[in-house]
Amino acid sequence: MTVIDLNSDVGESFGNWRMGDDAAVFESVSSANVACGFHAGDPSTIAQTCRDAVTAGVTIGAHPAYRDLAGFGRRFLDCSYTELFDDVLYQLGALQAMARAAGSDIRYVKPHGALYNTIVRHEVHAKAVIDAVRTFDKDLPVLLLPGAVALDIAADAGLRGVTEAFADRNYNPDGTLVSRREANAVIHDPDQVTANMVRLATQGTITAVDGTEIPMSAESICVHGDTPGAVAMARAVRAGLESAGVTIQSFV
Amino acid sequence: MTVIDLNSDVGESFGNWRMGDDAAVFESVSSANVACGFHAGDPSTIAQTCRDAVTAGVTIGAHPAYRDLAGFGRRFLDCSYTELFDDVLYQLGALQAMARAAGSDIRYVKPHGALYNTIVRHEVHAKAVIDAVRTFDKDLPVLLLPGAVALDIAADAGLRGVTEAFADRNYNPDGTLVSRREANAVIHDPDQVTANMVRLATQGTITAVDGTEIPMSAESICVHGDTPGAVAMARAVRAGLESAGVTIQSFV
Amino acid sequence: MTVIDLNSDVGESFGNWRMGDDAAVFESVSSANVACGFHAGDPSTIAQTCRDAVTAGVTIGAHPAYRDLAGFGRRFLDCSYTELFDDVLYQLGALQAMARAAGSDIRYVKPHGALYNTIVRHEVHAKAVIDAVRTFDKDLPVLLLPGAVALDIAADAGLRGVTEAFADRNYNPDGTLVSRREANAVIHDPDQVTANMVRLATQGTITAVDGTEIPMSAESICVHGDTPGAVAMARAVRAGLESAGVTIQSFV
Amino acid sequence: MTVIDLNSDVGESFGNWRMGDDAAVFESVSSANVACGFHAGDPSTIAQTCRDAVTAGVTIGAHPAYRDLAGFGRRFLDCSYTELFDDVLYQLGALQAMARAAGSDIRYVKPHGALYNTIVRHEVHAKAVIDAVRTFDKDLPVLLLPGAVALDIAADAGLRGVTEAFADRNYNPDGTLVSRREANAVIHDPDQVTANMVRLATQGTITAVDGTEIPMSAESICVHGDTPGAVAMARAVRAGLESAGVTIQSFV
Repeated sequence: MTVIDLNSDVGESFGNWRMGDDAAVFESVSSANVACGFHAGDPSTIAQTCRDAVTAGVTIGAHPAYRDLAGFGRRFLDCSYTELFDDVLYQLGALQAMARAAGSDIRYVKPHGALYNTIVRHEVHAKAVIDAVRTFDKDLPVLLLPGAVALDIAADAGLRGVTEAFADRNYNPDGTLVSRREANAVIHDPDQVTANMVRLATQGTITAVDGTEIPMSAESICVHGDTPGAVAMARAVRAGLESAGVTIQSFV
Repeated sequence: MTVIDLNSDVGESFGNWRMGDDAAVFESVSSANVACGFHAGDPSTIAQTCRDAVTAGVTIGAHPAYRDLAGFGRRFLDCSYTELFDDVLYQLGALQAMARAAGSDIRYVKPHGALYNTIVRHEVHAKAVIDAVRTFDKDLPVLLLPGAVALDIAADAGLRGVTEAFADRNYNPDGTLVSRREANAVIHDPDQVTANMVRLATQGTITAVDGTEIPMSAESICVHGDTPGAVAMARAVRAGLESAGVTIQSFV
Repeated sequence: MTVIDLNSDVGESFGNWRMGDDAAVFESVSSANVACGFHAGDPSTIAQTCRDAVTAGVTIGAHPAYRDLAGFGRRFLDCSYTELFDDVLYQLGALQAMARAAGSDIRYVKPHGALYNTIVRHEVHAKAVIDAVRTFDKDLPVLLLPGAVALDIAADAGLRGVTEAFADRNYNPDGTLVSRREANAVIHDPDQVTANMVRLATQGTITAVDGTEIPMSAESICVHGDTPGAVAMARAVRAGLESAGVTIQSFV
Repeated sequence: MTVIDLNSDVGESFGNWRMGDDAAVFESVSSANVACGFHAGDPSTIAQTCRDAVTAGVTIGAHPAYRDLAGFGRRFLDCSYTELFDDVLYQLGALQAMARAAGSDIRYVKPHGALYNTIVRHEVHAKAVIDAVRTFDKDLPVLLLPGAVALDIAADAGLRGVTEAFADRNYNPDGTLVSRREANAVIHDPDQVTANMVRLATQGTITAVDGTEIPMSAESICVHGDTPGAVAMARAVRAGLESAGVTIQSFV
């Protein structure tokens, strides 16, 4: 049986501000990266999101971030190892209480935004994240970008690293993402995206931006829910995968 | 054997700002009310405070508050039941992760500041706090003011309510605290405070402001560590109790 | 010539979170209550909002609030006179810098949310707001609810108080608003709302919930822009007023 | 007449947390860098600080920072040009309202902490700061580190750049500061510090860490008030300068 996970960010409303169509997302994904309050997600949003995830049968993952509400966690913050370790641990604990009140648990961790991107290369921040996760629960997998230095640090720490592909992004022939500074960074055609993800799930390859077929190892596919187009794309990807006989299932 | 608990607020620094002499407090008390980040206590402060509590053999309690860093949690905030329930649960989870990383656990809950005072009478906020604690861990006692409506709600919910006396406060003959608006609200003489607390621990009475001896049931005594005078007072109370043969010991 | 002002809240996005359709609002109103950062409005949102107001020829008013991002300024916060005075003055200064960079100025002040409602009766908070406005600029009018104690305090302080009506709210025969706890608090029919506001502007009366025609003195009408329905309502009110020969114009 | 300015950071308390002995600082300095609320300084602290500065006859400068209360503005935050421009402008406006209420004005700007250090080299952030200051008031000088790229950008923008020396820091023979990573970064001997600053004020030189006398052009000297030792050092520097016939006077 061919299986793959679909993940998306949820719980990113804050107080009176709404973000994303989480209800629609829960219909498409198997894993939900739930905001923990430092870039988004007030406690009541988090609590409701956890209940909705449980109702939808979607696995709850923690989505910790730099402490930066004004920047939505998308700006690098030059904090120390200790500050980041403690900030991540605090967020995991807070989300855990909400997940348990909803009848579930944190099952994995995916760092958010600038933190996710930073720990592709920044060893100190990568180690702070990995050490915080291991301290919290040494059996939690961490969802990361293929090639991230955090994957090596996770392996050294005895944590399971899980890699993901981005459904709507173009890839260079070397397997890296086409930079968002390039005009063709994002693929907007649902058919092309879906075909790419079916090949990923069934053959372990995707078509790079130059048309070459390259190997791509990923246990999860990241989709979005912050725009109507993104929600439609997520639905298309799920439908396409299921039509191709792929089972959508959490990696935990 | 006569026993009583001594509790104090700790972990109330935030970032670059220091608050209180926690190291001195840990020498005097058996229970530490650890800030959870909403009125004070950044994650690194909380983490260090939990480690210090464990080293000192002091029991960790959660000290959740209204979300109000600028007001140090000392201002009533008219939030809804759901907002308060979720805010308290979030804080408990966050502190739990830090306490566990330090090798311990949250063993009780004492609401902070305006929240502590509000739930003496405010039934909706009292119920939000009690329900959040019960949801988090139904075996956690809650430390409250004698006579608080939250005590009745705790009892109805099957939670253990624990009452405390304030070492340096004068009491009216009816057992209520002399208002801080009165000039004699606070007792500044360590000998008088200590004698009062010894009678509390050994005889279950204290001397009210008019000189009458009144019954006072309390399993814990609240002391402070935010000024040099407060730290000296806490030491005096502990020494006086021990000299009188009272064992200082957590109520859990 | 019959004139009246139309005002609406704008600039209430924060960071990555959008709130309201400000561009549409600017087509309908003559006065814009711009968030100042304490309940909503990050500096870049405020700056852009001020530029858009200037482009649209809409008068800029300050919309200060309690310090409560998580509650969008809709929760009473029991701060002191001094805290509130300084919080309001800080917000006025911050907005003034943005308004001036856009080529304009703060021309009036309308307190936001819970602060607006609180100073209908709370004399200490009312005085803090009025004193802060007077300290900032003694020529600034303050937009308030008819009957608010803050109007009396403004008059005593030599500040101009301006009163407003709410376009889509039902009124009791005594001129007070039908409580939002009642099912008929809000009027949803644009024709009814528009007819009511035309009578207000041209005759100085509105039709109360029991059908009686009551006097209503208001120099401004409050409309909303936070939902598509609200935007349509604002457009209908403006069109109806203009069709009735009323000029929409700022009160300053 | 030989004159020089002494500047120090003030107003860095926040809510219930105290920072520094501002009263003592005001006795020693001619210029006060007042926190603006983004790294420290709640509105009431800022207001009181401005009143105290006016009473002491000390010039008020703005001390804007990255938005980072938890990190006290000491951590680089990778914000955009627009975000930083608007954040600085917002802070200047907020402080201006407080300074005017105290009977004064912002007379200069000194960026705080990580922002101060970043704009030594970071052209985008340097330009954002300079452009915000110029937009706010094109006649305000900006206090910066000698050699900072922000000085060149200020000059291009027609703003006056003012340079400062650090009283208690050792300098390399090339005029740069000995890194804080080195053991001898800070000079602890008040006599040595004072002698160094007298030479700076009277001869335009200081003694570098290797004993060589190097030219140093500075219109201001930075001292600190956050520890008892720092306060004593500031007093010693002022007394030493005055004994040498140097007049302590603001550069504006």
